[in-house]
Amino acid sequence: MRISELSAQTGVTVPTIKYYLREGLLPEGERTSPTQAAYGEKHVERLRVIRALLDAGVSIAETRRVLGALDDPPASPNALLGTAHAAITPPVEDSLDLADTEALVAGLGWTPGACDPAVLHAVARALDGLERAGFVVPKPVMREYLRSARRIADAEIAGVPEGSAEAAVRYVVLGSVLVEPLLLALRRVAQQVSSGERFGG
Amino acid sequence: MRISELSAQTGVTVPTIKYYLREGLLPEGERTSPTQAAYGEKHVERLRVIRALLDAGVSIAETRRVLGALDDPPASPNALLGTAHAAITPPVEDSLDLADTEALVAGLGWTPGACDPAVLHAVARALDGLERAGFVVPKPVMREYLRSARRIADAEIAGVPEGSAEAAVRYVVLGSVLVEPLLLALRRVAQQVSSGERFGG
Repeated sequence: MRISELSAQTGVTVPTIKYYLREGLLPEGERTSPTQAAYGEKHVERLRVIRALLDAGVSIAETRRVLGALDDPPASPNALLGTAHAAITPPVEDSLDLADTEALVAGLGWTPGACDPAVLHAVARALDGLERAGFVVPKPVMREYLRSARRIADAEIAGVPEGSAEAAVRYVVLGSVLVEPLLLALRRVAQQVSSGERFGG
Repeated sequence: MRISELSAQTGVTVPTIKYYLREGLLPEGERTSPTQAAYGEKHVERLRVIRALLDAGVSIAETRRVLGALDDPPASPNALLGTAHAAITPPVEDSLDLADTEALVAGLGWTPGACDPAVLHAVARALDGLERAGFVVPKPVMREYLRSARRIADAEIAGVPEGSAEAAVRYVVLGSVLVEPLLLALRRVAQQVSSGERFGG
């Protein structure tokens, strides 16, 4: 199909499609003439994934890296998760002290080497932000965060499809990124329901 | 103290402090001359909160609304949570179909009127993003999301401090916003730990 048809089918405007082509998010179509290219179903599907990532707040640069992980996945599902996380996690900051973080994530089953340093640093950065704001998470609440994070992760990892490598890649890469807005939104609904029950409407 | 001392004490540069003053995030100091103003402890604390919110990815406009909720809190803790959520939740989109969302959040104890429409719409938008990307959350995983969201919210709401209205306001407003990066980072650590256990390192 032509770029105009690709636009009509996906609802993404032609200038935006051209922008994604220039940014390397969308692979080039097959040249049919010096000024025209043909696009196929894989472009339709790729455009849907790009829109979903950008709508979820993932940056253009992160989206490029996530798509790279989809196109060129590492061999093991475990390495795949690391690649997906690396695409959306800021690099390590050496200035952060990890002692408190390591003590905390031991509650998740973490031991030295059990996860990428960048992901551990993301926890340290979040704790640092809370501390600088003078915000203290009550101990029973923090315990529930750890328990729930582990339960969620166990359910998710148990759900990694076996058999099809492509299905596993999609599940791990898109699941780790796209589900985040859903989890945060569900927490807000639950907070309002729970607050209504405790404090009245 | 002078603006230069406020800068030294908080590590925020003078131009950035002036930017926050212009944006209305930081209240003016007390004028001591036509060109100078004096700042106090409340400015130090406010700067810490501003930095924490911006570092957590909250926009300038949302930060202004969150700070407004801190300064001028509604009477009931329940209304307070609504105000905090409204500050960081995009407005309602009428184009979204809420039927699937309402069926889903019933699992959180949600009933019509149990939460702000904007928060319900955030769930609908997240589900819509997943659907457009062709991503299906397996049923057992979704059940765990709902159970964990409710457990987390119950622990958080049980932890709302009683007695001091100011402490309750800080807890609800900052807790609902600043804890989000922590929860997402803990989930990533737990995913890597759980994946390492299932698939090997």
